[in-house]
Amino acid sequence: MKIRNYTFQEFADRVKEFHGYEAPGIIVGGFMVDLAYGHLPEGWLLDALSETPKCLPDAIQLLTPCTVGNGWLTVVNVGRFALTLYNKENGEGVRVFIDAAKLEAWSELKTWFFKLKPKKEQDRDLLAAQIKEAGNRICGMQTVKVADRFIKKRARGLLGVCPRCREGYPIADGPSCLACSGKENLFQ
Amino acid sequence: MKIRNYTFQEFADRVKEFHGYEAPGIIVGGFMVDLAYGHLPEGWLLDALSETPKCLPDAIQLLTPCTVGNGWLTVVNVGRFALTLYNKENGEGVRVFIDAAKLEAWSELKTWFFKLKPKKEQDRDLLAAQIKEAGNRICGMQTVKVADRFIKKRARGLLGVCPRCREGYPIADGPSCLACSGKENLFQ
Repeated sequence: MKIRNYTFQEFADRVKEFHGYEAPGIIVGGFMVDLAYGHLPEGWLLDALSETPKCLPDAIQLLTPCTVGNGWLTVVNVGRFALTLYNKENGEGVRVFIDAAKLEAWSELKTWFFKLKPKKEQDRDLLAAQIKEAGNRICGMQTVKVADRFIKKRARGLLGVCPRCREGYPIADGPSCLACSGKENLFQ
Repeated sequence: MKIRNYTFQEFADRVKEFHGYEAPGIIVGGFMVDLAYGHLPEGWLLDALSETPKCLPDAIQLLTPCTVGNGWLTVVNVGRFALTLYNKENGEGVRVFIDAAKLEAWSELKTWFFKLKPKKEQDRDLLAAQIKEAGNRICGMQTVKVADRFIKKRARGLLGVCPRCREGYPIADGPSCLACSGKENLFQ
């Protein structure tokens, strides 16, 4: 069993190093990324969309060239455990999601996914075994075209110095930066 | 010169592997994370806040335990090149930012940071040399306490199956998921 170019154990080790622990959601996410890749044409310049901030972004960052910091991964929290890998030029891509109906065959996976029991009452060993055995068989897949806002990247535009904090900021945000103008309260 | 536990070259190599190329913003970000760490008490359980989605989140993800997927890194785009590492229990922390006034001593760094010339007209070698020589001397630092919303994590709450897409979603989002209800348009 491979997850992209890794063996299962190699990927689990990378997850532990990057994410802090072998979170079930990233292992499942690894199978999802792997499935999506298998249905993409070679040579596409990829961008990625994660529909949850939980776990899935880290699977994408570990297994694709897309990271939050390089701008090729966008996270929009609609609370669905789903990802899309798409052609950054035209938005066509493959979306992979957890198919709730398919979870019926995997009792502990279903319990974990829908949080049917508190985490400490879940059977971690059984969950790990079912994740590995199920692989991508709990996933659904569809071809999609992402919305324009994910294709046309906005340039940051001109930068200036905020007259209040004296730091660089995008002038298009207004006469002072979003933090100083109170539009985003970051600190107490 | 060390950036956390890495030599400069080791860090540059990790940046290239993770981010795709040795982006100036991540190298600068590495110095920023390193500076912040040096002023934190030992043993704090850390969370991180990045005030820009550009580059800085990747420096944080490479040099701290905080990633987007494990929930310990939050990105709020106020367009300032600044990060905060903070105690996840009480929100106290250290904020490191680029001090615009200090950039005056570094011509090519200033040109890059404020985008005073198109990228292809910038002197990449001079920029790399100035980044390495300046290190954290272009940074400012302040102690802060982050806003409550970054301390109290919201639980996702109960999950259900969306009657439209048949995928799992947080019931608190409404009778159907945010994508199906049209609150977030992800696809064409």
